[in-house]
Amino acid sequence: MRLLLVHGPNLSQLGSRDPAVYGKATLDDAVAAVRREHNDVEAFTAEFEGELVTRLHVARTDGTGAVVVNPGALTHYSYALRDALELLTVPKVEVHLSQTAARERFRHTSVVSAVVDVTITGAGLTGYRLAALAVLDLAARR
Amino acid sequence: MRLLLVHGPNLSQLGSRDPAVYGKATLDDAVAAVRREHNDVEAFTAEFEGELVTRLHVARTDGTGAVVVNPGALTHYSYALRDALELLTVPKVEVHLSQTAARERFRHTSVVSAVVDVTITGAGLTGYRLAALAVLDLAARR
Amino acid sequence: MRLLLVHGPNLSQLGSRDPAVYGKATLDDAVAAVRREHNDVEAFTAEFEGELVTRLHVARTDGTGAVVVNPGALTHYSYALRDALELLTVPKVEVHLSQTAARERFRHTSVVSAVVDVTITGAGLTGYRLAALAVLDLAARR
Amino acid sequence: MRLLLVHGPNLSQLGSRDPAVYGKATLDDAVAAVRREHNDVEAFTAEFEGELVTRLHVARTDGTGAVVVNPGALTHYSYALRDALELLTVPKVEVHLSQTAARERFRHTSVVSAVVDVTITGAGLTGYRLAALAVLDLAARR
Amino acid sequence: MRLLLVHGPNLSQLGSRDPAVYGKATLDDAVAAVRREHNDVEAFTAEFEGELVTRLHVARTDGTGAVVVNPGALTHYSYALRDALELLTVPKVEVHLSQTAARERFRHTSVVSAVVDVTITGAGLTGYRLAALAVLDLAARR
Amino acid sequence: MRLLLVHGPNLSQLGSRDPAVYGKATLDDAVAAVRREHNDVEAFTAEFEGELVTRLHVARTDGTGAVVVNPGALTHYSYALRDALELLTVPKVEVHLSQTAARERFRHTSVVSAVVDVTITGAGLTGYRLAALAVLDLAARR
Amino acid sequence: MRLLLVHGPNLSQLGSRDPAVYGKATLDDAVAAVRREHNDVEAFTAEFEGELVTRLHVARTDGTGAVVVNPGALTHYSYALRDALELLTVPKVEVHLSQTAARERFRHTSVVSAVVDVTITGAGLTGYRLAALAVLDLAARR
Amino acid sequence: MRLLLVHGPNLSQLGSRDPAVYGKATLDDAVAAVRREHNDVEAFTAEFEGELVTRLHVARTDGTGAVVVNPGALTHYSYALRDALELLTVPKVEVHLSQTAARERFRHTSVVSAVVDVTITGAGLTGYRLAALAVLDLAARR
Amino acid sequence: MRLLLVHGPNLSQLGSRDPAVYGKATLDDAVAAVRREHNDVEAFTAEFEGELVTRLHVARTDGTGAVVVNPGALTHYSYALRDALELLTVPKVEVHLSQTAARERFRHTSVVSAVVDVTITGAGLTGYRLAALAVLDLAARR
Amino acid sequence: MRLLLVHGPNLSQLGSRDPAVYGKATLDDAVAAVRREHNDVEAFTAEFEGELVTRLHVARTDGTGAVVVNPGALTHYSYALRDALELLTVPKVEVHLSQTAARERFRHTSVVSAVVDVTITGAGLTGYRLAALAVLDLAARR
Amino acid sequence: MRLLLVHGPNLSQLGSRDPAVYGKATLDDAVAAVRREHNDVEAFTAEFEGELVTRLHVARTDGTGAVVVNPGALTHYSYALRDALELLTVPKVEVHLSQTAARERFRHTSVVSAVVDVTITGAGLTGYRLAALAVLDLAARR
Amino acid sequence: MRLLLVHGPNLSQLGSRDPAVYGKATLDDAVAAVRREHNDVEAFTAEFEGELVTRLHVARTDGTGAVVVNPGALTHYSYALRDALELLTVPKVEVHLSQTAARERFRHTSVVSAVVDVTITGAGLTGYRLAALAVLDLAARR
Repeated sequence: MRLLLVHGPNLSQLGSRDPAVYGKATLDDAVAAVRREHNDVEAFTAEFEGELVTRLHVARTDGTGAVVVNPGALTHYSYALRDALELLTVPKVEVHLSQTAARERFRHTSVVSAVVDVTITGAGLTGYRLAALAVLDLAARR
Repeated sequence: MRLLLVHGPNLSQLGSRDPAVYGKATLDDAVAAVRREHNDVEAFTAEFEGELVTRLHVARTDGTGAVVVNPGALTHYSYALRDALELLTVPKVEVHLSQTAARERFRHTSVVSAVVDVTITGAGLTGYRLAALAVLDLAARR
Repeated sequence: MRLLLVHGPNLSQLGSRDPAVYGKATLDDAVAAVRREHNDVEAFTAEFEGELVTRLHVARTDGTGAVVVNPGALTHYSYALRDALELLTVPKVEVHLSQTAARERFRHTSVVSAVVDVTITGAGLTGYRLAALAVLDLAARR
Repeated sequence: MRLLLVHGPNLSQLGSRDPAVYGKATLDDAVAAVRREHNDVEAFTAEFEGELVTRLHVARTDGTGAVVVNPGALTHYSYALRDALELLTVPKVEVHLSQTAARERFRHTSVVSAVVDVTITGAGLTGYRLAALAVLDLAARR
Repeated sequence: MRLLLVHGPNLSQLGSRDPAVYGKATLDDAVAAVRREHNDVEAFTAEFEGELVTRLHVARTDGTGAVVVNPGALTHYSYALRDALELLTVPKVEVHLSQTAARERFRHTSVVSAVVDVTITGAGLTGYRLAALAVLDLAARR
Repeated sequence: MRLLLVHGPNLSQLGSRDPAVYGKATLDDAVAAVRREHNDVEAFTAEFEGELVTRLHVARTDGTGAVVVNPGALTHYSYALRDALELLTVPKVEVHLSQTAARERFRHTSVVSAVVDVTITGAGLTGYRLAALAVLDLAARR
Repeated sequence: MRLLLVHGPNLSQLGSRDPAVYGKATLDDAVAAVRREHNDVEAFTAEFEGELVTRLHVARTDGTGAVVVNPGALTHYSYALRDALELLTVPKVEVHLSQTAARERFRHTSVVSAVVDVTITGAGLTGYRLAALAVLDLAARR
Repeated sequence: MRLLLVHGPNLSQLGSRDPAVYGKATLDDAVAAVRREHNDVEAFTAEFEGELVTRLHVARTDGTGAVVVNPGALTHYSYALRDALELLTVPKVEVHLSQTAARERFRHTSVVSAVVDVTITGAGLTGYRLAALAVLDLAARR
Repeated sequence: MRLLLVHGPNLSQLGSRDPAVYGKATLDDAVAAVRREHNDVEAFTAEFEGELVTRLHVARTDGTGAVVVNPGALTHYSYALRDALELLTVPKVEVHLSQTAARERFRHTSVVSAVVDVTITGAGLTGYRLAALAVLDLAARR
Repeated sequence: MRLLLVHGPNLSQLGSRDPAVYGKATLDDAVAAVRREHNDVEAFTAEFEGELVTRLHVARTDGTGAVVVNPGALTHYSYALRDALELLTVPKVEVHLSQTAARERFRHTSVVSAVVDVTITGAGLTGYRLAALAVLDLAARR
Repeated sequence: MRLLLVHGPNLSQLGSRDPAVYGKATLDDAVAAVRREHNDVEAFTAEFEGELVTRLHVARTDGTGAVVVNPGALTHYSYALRDALELLTVPKVEVHLSQTAARERFRHTSVVSAVVDVTITGAGLTGYRLAALAVLDLAARR
Repeated sequence: MRLLLVHGPNLSQLGSRDPAVYGKATLDDAVAAVRREHNDVEAFTAEFEGELVTRLHVARTDGTGAVVVNPGALTHYSYALRDALELLTVPKVEVHLSQTAARERFRHTSVVSAVVDVTITGAGLTGYRLAALAVLDLAARR
């Protein structure tokens, strides 16, 4: 089963972004954390909302069996991303490196949580490992 | 007179999206509904806000005589799309397949309605035919 | 099939009301626009919420096959009208001459949209023709 | 010049309504206060929004030269009355016996103030005399 | 002692309105439920706010000893009805067939509760019997 | 059938609490009012949210056939109590001695109404008798 | 009896301020309008909130019999002025030249209305004459 | 290292609570899921806010090395629980069986998320296993 | 005269809680500060809302002459505690060690201030001594 | 050490202001209450926000060792006063005679509390004595 | 051409106010920065809103050709200052030393921005130089 | 030092967009205004949020020494752009041609101001020159 790992805007800069909040991990480390739990992982990263939406459309018919997504700042306003995720019927997990509830007010709201199965916040890189486990568990139970 | 028919994010998936809300019609059916009322129709569909904005800029000088637009989820937050529509002085009609006022709260607000001439919601494919009639009527009266 | 065309408060004054917003069309012109698309039309106009509610009750059993309604200012606060419309199971279309989203704040909210099938705003008299087409299309599809 | 004095719901009960708020004056006293300043006064009182709207429509062509209106509780929610008043181009004064800003929260908002020329609150019966003077002054200056 | 039973807009349609929410009871059943507890009952039903207000004014001097009222959708916005009820000093009970707090958001607020003695929601036809008992109890205690 | 009568914080003080609002009735009077309508009544009173929640859990399997509950001030914020009531599938009636809608702002909202069948406010001790009737009627109709 | 006429910030500029809103009248014209109804008038104008507050304190014991006040922009936020007006027990009338409810949002709220007897808005210079009459009437009735 | 697993109100009823939302898992299953990842687990369950607060105080000095907490409905309003969690400096993970963002509005806000390290929602029983992994990972990294 | 000193949730942890906010003082120090001003002091501390409510009920008849209360986090949401305090007619003073208005937003609101006589915030341990003086002064003046 | 006692607008009127709220104490009594606890007190009273701000600026370098301030109505909106107080680094206590939280809504918010050390409300004249003690205590601890 | 440089409350303290926010520059340095770009500069500084308003009134007729204004905290609430600025028809630039959008919430709103031509925030002393350039440019283009 | 000048959606249309708001200047004029103050300027314009985010990422390592940004309508909702700007540690200035605070409500909020050093609004083309000066000054002071 293919697991699609999706990253949104600014997450390409992981590792060089404010270490007090995000730690020193890079995007590669995040991908590796998922791969430790599952060997068929495709990582997709984009700064464009449109690319993310398009990739999720493709996932409807290319054999993708599960999605782990960290939409970055799009989490807080992209209803287009929300619609694209809602269209997709495979298991879906949302993950955030930091504990968003303890940061700026606008980060307290996620417009995608209501259309994914599971949300994990604040666990850093480990959050990716947990997300992989969660999404595989969801897939196994269908 | 050329009529430009613009579709935003996720509308490419029509036909395979929740039939209870959207019916079984595809995007091609929508285009056909417009073409039934007018023979010079160009259909433009994009998942990217930037592509939509750019196409609307081009429409200012390429002889486009009218616009029918279904911005998808961008309807609810894209002030960039609103500005692009406001720049365009030809007749403009906004159309939505579903009755947005009867769905989730965030779909009750359209940030583009105030800068288009006409809005039509809830009529399904027929809405496209009505939109074509409306925009042609607006053009004829100028 | 009988189509009932309902107008609410102040619409009797069409033609002499602010032409910059409403044009020069009269209520008779609106009725005529609907009649151009369908030959069995009954026009009902009232300044009283209670009369509108009563007429809609009658429509439940008098063979009315579809309703086109412009509730005027009641659009923004009459939950009684909303309940009366909800009780009625024939196809229903809401129409407004002006683009309400571009006017005063209180006109941006419609308490009836969620219980009608289709809403059309800003198309002037043509809006009535479109409403007639929409409601007939809805009736045909049942 | 004819001055139309309009009273809305519950004002027919003046004199027997809570004296701590409204005093002992009756509706006749209110009419008399206006007549003391002007001899051509027509008093119109209704409990129905629709009757008020209809009377104001008639006033557009029956030679009415000015309007003094106390809409009672409709003040706080009747956009239909607001539209009817806005249609009328003669001088218009809104009057309330009590100081509405010092009573329940819902009485702090008037949806008609923005479409009348003058508003007078809290002066009791004298408010009617003041309103008559104001409306005559506005008429004289046209 | 005469008990006045008042029904507002759309309640005349009971029995044929959505049975999942309102059951199969008719307005006659509601009146009968009240009459089972008291033999001097006058039932008054109107679709017009103005008629309801007028009837309540009459009740101030026609020997009415108690009022049971189901204002229908006017519950949520009619300050005119509220004022009319406030003017009336006999015992007053508000009743709703359905549990309004479990329905649409706009049904959660009653603008009349603060000026009646008792409110009963969700008990269906039995609610009328309870309302009759409550209002008689209030009358007896004066 | 056993009827469980549940009282929340501060209701133990009935009789000595502000008589202008609550009258002179004691908690025993409230229990007696219920017993007048039904002979198998168990009264349970607690100042602790946790005790109330626990008692309602027990009621799921101890043969309790109906619940009448006055949650006191917990009405306005205890989602834990709401969840406990929602778990319980027997008929449930919420009762308040005073007309909460006419008191402080925070008492206008009940977080439990949406999960009980019936709500009765403002009827004083009689409210308990009505609640007993309501809950027995609900039980009989199942 | 001495009538104190108080003007707040920016009103000294009347006559040269936006004529579309305020007309061509000067502050002297306003004073003259009041003097036409009463011969013992003292006009006091200040740009300082503190001076206005102090003058109102003095008015408590210097034989001032009534106050007409146009607080300018302080109307919308000066609780200090509100407190000073509340301390003063003579009749008080608030007057505004323009119809504040039809201008910017912040001008819709007056923090002083609740502590004066009468408010008059939108009557231009005539508003001053009306205010004089109102305040003399209030004084006569004591 | 001892891991303390804390459950709040109504979670004792797991297994018999709405299976559509919570599945058939019992509280014992939840404890077992945690024990599968760690062998030194103490499970503590209470319906009382005060008991939860007290247990967390004890955890400050009894060698507890990590906390996994599902506060039930207290999640949405218990600032006392928040303060107790904030006092505790060991790794803390908040877990919810259901995807709270897809349920009633009041469940969208957690007042404790800002003072715990990680939050996991929607993963059902698996969420407990993930929480155990997360908290052990946090402990290992200190 | 007996002075009852009441502490709510988490205050038992004083001395070991964040010293930057609360200093190093313990609960015993707080009690001692009160005892320095008055020799008949009973200190009562509880983590349970229900225990606090119960103790305040007892205080109505056990000779308690005054209350000093620091409700901890319950300050911000416990309407049950508010009701219990309101029932008690002896002098009451609310005290908080820290300046709550300068901390997190939810600490800016106290639901109990309106039913106690005096509130003192931000004075640390000295606040207790001040509260003792205040409550004794209130008692002396009765 | 010099203690500066600052009073804002309208407090000069103490003693003749509404005795139900403020009692009969005068400003001199307030000063005396502070002097009872400390012998080097300078009292400064002004109706002008600007004078208060200026005096606080001077206090930064004239040897003032502590400030007790009752800003009157400026409490609720004067960010200028707030800034001036924030600039001053000596101990600062805010005092109000009445329990502001039990009065009008706008008095529930203090914009200065966050920049002073201690706030005392509702203790009447005694509040001044308490404030003196509080500020001396703060000074001693530095 | 004379350039008037206006400073509001607390800006006289520049240089000794929190250096982390404002730097070490004094008000003289700010004046000098403006003078570097223009040689006819009058600096006016006041702690009183009333003085600022008065000075701006004078500027209407004393040959002032442009205004640069830093209103200090009045920025956030002084509608009186706003009105005074609106009256003045010369070019006007608002300047703030710090980036107000990154500080406390109340500093995010400026009630004067809408009536000045240009706003510059966050540039420190350089902001004054920019403001001088902007205002001169505006003047030259008239 | 390289200065990067970034323009967002719709700014490519400058010169042909509403001249009443934006003047006749083109984007080239804007670039020229910046080049007048600095000779090493790279202009980057995009209609896509994703392109802007990507370009700002590149700027972190390509020797860019300062950024001037006009994000167009993205200013009001793009948290992704905000994050990208926050990641960049060189001096940053936000510029808008029009005075956004005097236009539609949605333009009053900027989600990027808090993460840039300086904001300049309303100065038209000159604003670009000022922005160049500001950003160079910021760079020089590091």
